[in-house]
Amino acid sequence: MAICEILSVGTEILLGDILNTNTRFLSEELAKLGISVLRHTTVGDNPERLREAASTALGRSDIVIATGGLGPTADDITREICCKVFGFELIFSESIAETIRSYFGRKGTDMPETNLKQAYIPAGGTVFENENGTAPGLGMKKDGKCLVILPGPPYEMAPMYKKSVVPFIKEYAGGIIVSHTVRTMKIGESAMAEICADLLENENPTVAPYAKMGEALLRITAKAETEDEAEKMCAPVIEDIKNRLGNFVYGIDSENIEGRVVALLKENRLSIATAESCTAGYIPKRITDIPGASSVFEYGAVTYSNAVKEKVLGVRHSTLEKFGAVSPETALEMAAGIRKISGADIGISVTGIAGPDSDESGKPAGLIYVAIDAEGYSEYDTVETGRNDREYNRYVSASRALNLVRIYIEQKRG
Amino acid sequence: MAICEILSVGTEILLGDILNTNTRFLSEELAKLGISVLRHTTVGDNPERLREAASTALGRSDIVIATGGLGPTADDITREICCKVFGFELIFSESIAETIRSYFGRKGTDMPETNLKQAYIPAGGTVFENENGTAPGLGMKKDGKCLVILPGPPYEMAPMYKKSVVPFIKEYAGGIIVSHTVRTMKIGESAMAEICADLLENENPTVAPYAKMGEALLRITAKAETEDEAEKMCAPVIEDIKNRLGNFVYGIDSENIEGRVVALLKENRLSIATAESCTAGYIPKRITDIPGASSVFEYGAVTYSNAVKEKVLGVRHSTLEKFGAVSPETALEMAAGIRKISGADIGISVTGIAGPDSDESGKPAGLIYVAIDAEGYSEYDTVETGRNDREYNRYVSASRALNLVRIYIEQKRG
Repeated sequence: MAICEILSVGTEILLGDILNTNTRFLSEELAKLGISVLRHTTVGDNPERLREAASTALGRSDIVIATGGLGPTADDITREICCKVFGFELIFSESIAETIRSYFGRKGTDMPETNLKQAYIPAGGTVFENENGTAPGLGMKKDGKCLVILPGPPYEMAPMYKKSVVPFIKEYAGGIIVSHTVRTMKIGESAMAEICADLLENENPTVAPYAKMGEALLRITAKAETEDEAEKMCAPVIEDIKNRLGNFVYGIDSENIEGRVVALLKENRLSIATAESCTAGYIPKRITDIPGASSVFEYGAVTYSNAVKEKVLGVRHSTLEKFGAVSPETALEMAAGIRKISGADIGISVTGIAGPDSDESGKPAGLIYVAIDAEGYSEYDTVETGRNDREYNRYVSASRALNLVRIYIEQKRG
Repeated sequence: MAICEILSVGTEILLGDILNTNTRFLSEELAKLGISVLRHTTVGDNPERLREAASTALGRSDIVIATGGLGPTADDITREICCKVFGFELIFSESIAETIRSYFGRKGTDMPETNLKQAYIPAGGTVFENENGTAPGLGMKKDGKCLVILPGPPYEMAPMYKKSVVPFIKEYAGGIIVSHTVRTMKIGESAMAEICADLLENENPTVAPYAKMGEALLRITAKAETEDEAEKMCAPVIEDIKNRLGNFVYGIDSENIEGRVVALLKENRLSIATAESCTAGYIPKRITDIPGASSVFEYGAVTYSNAVKEKVLGVRHSTLEKFGAVSPETALEMAAGIRKISGADIGISVTGIAGPDSDESGKPAGLIYVAIDAEGYSEYDTVETGRNDREYNRYVSASRALNLVRIYIEQKRG
C-alpha cells in the first residue's frame, strides 16, 4: 500500500490565523484511492524547516503532497525549496505567464508583476491547470517517488486535486478500501462502544468509534482485492451494528442529519418550514447546504424576540407568560405556527439558551427545546448539553430538531 | 523564545473523518504568550509512529502539546506512549477514578468499566481537571522540557488549556508579541500586497498578507520587551495601511464582518432584520454567533421560493416576472419588505445562485445580489465570484450583505 504524507506550508497556519482544512480534504480523498496517509506535517514559510520537512517526508513516503506557499509574494517559497529538495530545476514558462496574464484580463484588472513568479515550473515535471486562481499546481516523479505541490486556498486546491492530481497519482492507488460509517444520535461514544465492544477487536473489516458534535459514530473499513469483495465484508457487520443500536442509528454514510432529512423529505414528497429562536438560521442554512433542497424547503422564520414569536408565528402571549420562551409549550406552538403560515407538511422549531450565559429566568445554557408539528402529529425533545459552548449548543439542537423529522418520517412509513 | 510543537493523535484525522481544529486554537493561544509554534504534526493511533513523533518533537522543542487519544477505548494510546517516551511512569489514581464515576453519576448513567483507563496518571506529573468530559489532562516537566497531553474533543481541550495549561507553561512565555490584523473586502490579495509592497519588507513589526473566503488580510506583528512598546510599534504601521487601503478596510482585529456589524449596530442603537434566498439563514446564524446579538436582531425571513418572497416580503409579482428572482430589483424589494414588516431600522437581503449549478435562466453560479434598505437610503451590491463552490458563494455573499451595513453606518456617522 502506497504511503503518503501531507505537508502544509504557511506561517499563518502556525499562528492560528487560518484553519487547515486542506489536510482533511486530501486525507479523505486519498483514503478513497487506498493510499495510506500516515502523517500530516505543517511548517511555516521558513526555508530551513521547510527544506528539512520536505526532505524527511520524501525520505519515508512514496507520495508527498505539499500545499500552500505558491502565492505571488516574497514569503512564498514552497515551489523553489520543494523542487530543489527533489532535484528538479525551475524554468520560466512563457505559456504559463500568458495564462496568468489572461486570468487577470478576464477579471478586468492589471496583473501585479510579482505574479510572474508563478510562471516558474520544474523541468521534466507536470503542470496542473488552476481554474480558480493564478498559481498552477506542480507534479514530479523520480525513483518511484512522487511530489505534488498545490496552491493553499481550498477553492483552488480541491478542484485541481480532483481533476489533475487523481490521474497523476493513479499508479499508487493500491488494493481497494471500502469504508462506511454508522451514525447515531442520543447515545454516548463509550456506551455505544461498549455495546459493540467485541466488534472493535475485528481486524478486517475494522470497526472504530468516534464522537463528533453530539453524535457517536462507528467507522467500518474493509480491505480487499475488489470493491465488491470489500462491500460484502462490510455488509453483515453494518447489519449487526444496526440491530444492536436500533433507533439511535439515524443513517449510514449520509454525510450528516440534514442530508438524511432532505433525502427522506424528497423520497416522501414532503415539505418543511422552520421556526427558530436560539439557532437563528442554522437549520435552514444546513438544510440548504444540500444542493436541490429548494424542492423541500420554502420558508424559515428566525424569531429571536418574544414579540416576533407572537406576531409572526402566532405563539400565544399566555404561553410565553406562563411557561416562558424556553419551554416545550412554546416550542410546540412555534412548530405549529410555522407549519400553518407556510402551508408546509412539517414545521419544526427550536427555542432555548445557546449560551455562553444562562438566561434571566435561571435556566442554564445548553437547555434547549425542539419540536415538530405535522398532520395529526406533534412531539418535542429536550436537549440538555450541560455546556456553555454557543456553537456546540446551536449545532446539536439544530441536529436534534432535524432528528425529530427523521423519526417522524420513518415511523410514518414503517 | 520558547519553541513549541503541537502533536495531534488520531487515525480519524488522517482518514479525513474529522477536521483538526485543535491545532489552530492552540497555535493562536500560544502566539499570544510569545511562544513560537514551529511545527504541527499529526500521526494515527499507531504505537511506533506515535513513539517516533513524540520522541522527535521532544528532542527539538521546549514544549510539546499532544492532543487526542485519551479516550476509553483500546486504540487510545497517547497517555501510555507519550509518558513512556518522556520517562514518566503511570500510576492508578483512586481519586481520579472517583471523579470519573461521579461525572457519570451526575449524568445519571453508569460508567463503562473501560473508562477507568483514564484514571492512570504520570507519577510526579500534574493533572488538569476536565470539566466537560472524563479524561483528565496531564502535564510533565523534566530537564527544562515540558510535555502536555490534552483530550481531543475541542470542547474539553479548549477550556482545560485556558484554565490549567496557561499557568502550567507560564515560565516559557517569552518577551511580548503583539499582533493586529487589518481586514479588507472587495480587493484581491495581490493588489493589496502591491499597494503595501514596501511594508512587507519590514522586519519588526512584520507585515504579512493572506487571503480568506472573499477577504484579503494583513497581519502586523511586533516583538518587544513590553506590551506597550509593541503596541507603539504597530500603531503607525496600521495607520499607514488604513490610509493606503481606504474604504476597502472593514475592520481592525474584529474577528469578522459580523462582529464588526453587531458592534456598529449596538453603538448606534440600530436594529436589523434579514431577508434571504440563497444564503438561507446564514446571515442570522452569523449575526447571532456573536453573544448578545439579541439586542440588535429580532427577525429574519428565509424566503426560498418566489411565492414566499411575494407573500411574506411583499416583493411585487411584476418585479419577479420582469427581472427574475436573481436581480438587483428583487434584492432591493426584499430588503425594503423585511424592514417594513419587522419594523427594524435596517433591512438587508440576499438573492442569487449559490451553485454548484447555474439556474434555468442561464445566470451563472456565484452571481448574487445583496441589498440594504434604511430610512432614506437604499443600495445594492453585485457579487460575482465566478465559482461554483456553494459554501464559498454563500459565505462571501452573506459577508458582502453585512458589508453594506458597515458602509451605511460609517457614512451616516461620518
